[in-house]
Amino acid sequence: MEDFEFVSPTQFVFGHGVEKQVGAKLAERGAKRVLLHFGGQSAVASGLIDRIKAALDDAGIEQVELGGVRPNPEITLVREGIALCKEHDIDWVLAVGGGSVIDSAKAIAVGAHYDGDVWDFFETKRQTDDVLPIAVVLTIPAAGSEASKNMVVSNDELGLKSGYPNNAQRPKLAFMNPELTFTLPPYQTAAGLTDMFCHLLERFFDDVGAVPVTDNLNLSLMRTVRAEAPCVLAETDNYDARANVMWAGMLCHQGLAGVGRHEDWATHGLEHELSALDPDITHGAGLAVMFPAWMEYVYSENPARFAFYGREVFGLASTGSAEDDALSAIDETRSFFASLGMPTTLCELGIEEDDIERMIPTLKENKGEPFGSFKKLTMDDAREIYRLAL
Amino acid sequence: MEDFEFVSPTQFVFGHGVEKQVGAKLAERGAKRVLLHFGGQSAVASGLIDRIKAALDDAGIEQVELGGVRPNPEITLVREGIALCKEHDIDWVLAVGGGSVIDSAKAIAVGAHYDGDVWDFFETKRQTDDVLPIAVVLTIPAAGSEASKNMVVSNDELGLKSGYPNNAQRPKLAFMNPELTFTLPPYQTAAGLTDMFCHLLERFFDDVGAVPVTDNLNLSLMRTVRAEAPCVLAETDNYDARANVMWAGMLCHQGLAGVGRHEDWATHGLEHELSALDPDITHGAGLAVMFPAWMEYVYSENPARFAFYGREVFGLASTGSAEDDALSAIDETRSFFASLGMPTTLCELGIEEDDIERMIPTLKENKGEPFGSFKKLTMDDAREIYRLAL
Repeated sequence: MEDFEFVSPTQFVFGHGVEKQVGAKLAERGAKRVLLHFGGQSAVASGLIDRIKAALDDAGIEQVELGGVRPNPEITLVREGIALCKEHDIDWVLAVGGGSVIDSAKAIAVGAHYDGDVWDFFETKRQTDDVLPIAVVLTIPAAGSEASKNMVVSNDELGLKSGYPNNAQRPKLAFMNPELTFTLPPYQTAAGLTDMFCHLLERFFDDVGAVPVTDNLNLSLMRTVRAEAPCVLAETDNYDARANVMWAGMLCHQGLAGVGRHEDWATHGLEHELSALDPDITHGAGLAVMFPAWMEYVYSENPARFAFYGREVFGLASTGSAEDDALSAIDETRSFFASLGMPTTLCELGIEEDDIERMIPTLKENKGEPFGSFKKLTMDDAREIYRLAL
Repeated sequence: MEDFEFVSPTQFVFGHGVEKQVGAKLAERGAKRVLLHFGGQSAVASGLIDRIKAALDDAGIEQVELGGVRPNPEITLVREGIALCKEHDIDWVLAVGGGSVIDSAKAIAVGAHYDGDVWDFFETKRQTDDVLPIAVVLTIPAAGSEASKNMVVSNDELGLKSGYPNNAQRPKLAFMNPELTFTLPPYQTAAGLTDMFCHLLERFFDDVGAVPVTDNLNLSLMRTVRAEAPCVLAETDNYDARANVMWAGMLCHQGLAGVGRHEDWATHGLEHELSALDPDITHGAGLAVMFPAWMEYVYSENPARFAFYGREVFGLASTGSAEDDALSAIDETRSFFASLGMPTTLCELGIEEDDIERMIPTLKENKGEPFGSFKKLTMDDAREIYRLAL
């Protein structure tokens, strides 16, 4: 087991109607003026934003609203949010939405006390712990951003999509009501399940040997996501299934599933270039295409690890050949994503062979070379993996 | 899944030689004068206390020492610690040891800013969030107190052993170096493994139906403890095995293994009376005796739950009879504890039938009646369970 540091200070308030506690819990923490940050019209139309505003009003907390966060959030709106924080002396950022809204809120919180341009953090990975506290009302379980230290933001002008991890931007409060996810469209539910599962895969496959305590926890989450997936897709208002998935989504990315390991994250790097090219590509859908391709390209580095994964998650019997078992595990992974209605090829996402060379320069800029851990990848390797995914 | 709140703010610093970082990390957090709290002479004789004092000196942090914490820590020493905190204007409590030292440190931290007697918190369960921050250098993985909200303290004068849980006393910093556990005597290692496993059992068996995400995580930890146990007992200096056990011990009691469930805790109540009667009884050894007896007495409430546990943790094949499968799972549990060298009867602990009536009044005072969740237990039930354990 590798040495590590780990902290996850988020206070979770989980269950029926917990969004009604937003005002009281924020007031307990001393909030006076929040930036209420959200995405499209669905949160408004559903009445959720109004309920939250009422809860904040009841607690005497002022609000400045900033909606309009898009999937794959963009730095321009982040800059607007930072200007609002400075203008109105905002002391908490309250994100209502899924990973995109939360990541945008994190970027705003990081930039609110910074005099330069917030993109500096993404470009030079400079660090700050002077971050506005963040609260979240989660509406889309997928990214795990409600507790993670990570955020990813796009910069359309530069054609980049870049991450900046730091413990200081882990949300302080997360309100998680599974009922809020009953109305998610099936495609978004499925993309979320895929995203969760891939957060576990990134942590499971690396160049560290077995770390049983972490690996067993990771595999237990893979089994949970796989087992609950058909339930949430078939019965969209099954509270318990939605609750299991919502909590699993947090655990998949909060960090415990990878402690003591190096983790890999090559596939996330490969996928980020897809959505940098076309912001309409849902992150989970991009991962569903790229992960099996990455697996096929790298599994021979350690087929036994893939065989173990296949036995533990898909219940595959051992054939005696780690190579064959590994290939079966990869097939099962692809089938699992397909069973959710996810795409299996880049072509289905509108990406063609000619696009590959457009992604390589920014991939190299974002990830460096070589990148990944299970197998160290060059840009030539990346080209091959994209080709396998076509 | 039941509604819940959960927070675990501890920052973990895990790995080789991490105790050398104690001074720097405490200084980062603003510590000026710490109460250095520890147990017997082993921490001094091993040089650990000197290394920690040197690290604190290097960081310019003053120290007041209070050693002598016994197993099943007692309120008298806690009161001494509180007096020292008040006299020396202590701003952090640093516990070096296992669960007893950490629980004693928590009680000191809770009482340091309180004008009345600290036993009030245990007696009336009055709450305070005005708690001195706590740091821990863990030397015995078992109790999970390095991250939990729980503490249990004995009051010899009253013949009571009582708990007081609160998130405010979760340690802020935990330094976990598996090398520090290489020299643990086998009995203490085994009792620690038992304690961990029982923290999971208490959370797994209750009156809530399946909570797959929590149950799978819980079962993954049971499998880890069971699989690593023979390694740490056979090769006492196996770093990876010690590391897996140390981290598992924290996860077994930090809370994630029970979220969304009611949890039970009847058996811990039954065991606490044993060590209130005889402080020389190791908590893990008492649990090894009481848990199989509790299981035999209650399993018929929900044999399928026990059968599931047996399949998942011990790999038992289903016979088609949940009743038979449950009984096999209970046998396996008793065998597992016995394989660690733990006692299997109260007689081995020096407790006889006549002692049972001496424990019932304080059990009733500490737990109330009925108590437990999987099956609601009366004092007559408790008598029967003690008799089964003789």
